[in-house]
Amino acid sequence: MNQRRGKTFIISGPSGVGKSTVLNALMQKRSNLYFSVSATTRQPREGEKDGQHYHFIDAETFREMLGRDEFLEHAEYVGNFYGTPKRYVDEAMERGQDVILDIEIQGAMQICEKRPETVRIFIAPPSWKELERRLTDRGTDSPEKIQKRLLRAKVELNSASSYDYFVINDSVDKAVAELDAILCAEHCRAADRISEIEGM
Amino acid sequence: MNQRRGKTFIISGPSGVGKSTVLNALMQKRSNLYFSVSATTRQPREGEKDGQHYHFIDAETFREMLGRDEFLEHAEYVGNFYGTPKRYVDEAMERGQDVILDIEIQGAMQICEKRPETVRIFIAPPSWKELERRLTDRGTDSPEKIQKRLLRAKVELNSASSYDYFVINDSVDKAVAELDAILCAEHCRAADRISEIEGM
Repeated sequence: MNQRRGKTFIISGPSGVGKSTVLNALMQKRSNLYFSVSATTRQPREGEKDGQHYHFIDAETFREMLGRDEFLEHAEYVGNFYGTPKRYVDEAMERGQDVILDIEIQGAMQICEKRPETVRIFIAPPSWKELERRLTDRGTDSPEKIQKRLLRAKVELNSASSYDYFVINDSVDKAVAELDAILCAEHCRAADRISEIEGM
Repeated sequence: MNQRRGKTFIISGPSGVGKSTVLNALMQKRSNLYFSVSATTRQPREGEKDGQHYHFIDAETFREMLGRDEFLEHAEYVGNFYGTPKRYVDEAMERGQDVILDIEIQGAMQICEKRPETVRIFIAPPSWKELERRLTDRGTDSPEKIQKRLLRAKVELNSASSYDYFVINDSVDKAVAELDAILCAEHCRAADRISEIEGM
């Protein structure tokens, strides 16, 4: 049997859906995951570490990398650039690690144009009411901001119909179990497995 | 959230691959499975129970059912007819049970023409050598018959490239865990899940 190559999984989901909690629990459960770190031209905030929270690079380096097609996806946001460097993703997959990309739908679309084999998973709330409740309970946003986030979530959910999987986060344990199953099942895909069978 | 509808999974695999052992263990692990029972016109053998091993019906009834398009697939073998009645499959899915169809590739192709949403899983041996060893260890077949079975397995494996998943049975526990993951993941498919999200 050949050395198993890793696969790339995009995880998207609206603000307040509990994505970070679910992904942290998934990283605990599956040891062989690589969580992709974005590159950005913005300044590090207090406590942020280079290579851990972001790869902090200057605008010139970003432009050069862009010119060499070294990003899987990129975007500009409030005057700063953000992007997913191909290099770390590819190195992790070569090592046999599965890669988790926590990115938004626009970035996901860019990646899937370049690499249609990328698996896309959308984490959805069990209901709008529940998402509203979670955003309110967080206590970090004004009612106006919460309504904006909900509107954005609805737009995102409509655009997410092309995703491969929907995981409904009504309980963290269940959501993690489903993500775990999806990662396992995707490695059983006939197209990948056929080459693993000796002497076919 | 709506009542979850069951899905149909075809499980194929060559003689000697350990399919029965794996499927029995899967039935133990997942309580909500319905194992499809075929209809046949052949006489019951000693110990075979109607509705458990087969639905035993006469040739006239079989032909009438065929005329009313009541089979998902059917075949003739040594003068007897075999078929998968739609009715029990559909009733189980309506109850929310997942249906397991243990059938050969020809039957699988018939079903997928009628119902392309059916998920097809092929249980493969880790290697030809290992399949030969298992067939020899069983001690039920002559060396000549074993060679015939191996040749047939190779033909089957070549035809199985259109299957959705390959589960390599190098250990029963691992194979069962992978089948379990595939069944779980298939229920997370975006197309099925979108309707589950309240008020979308």
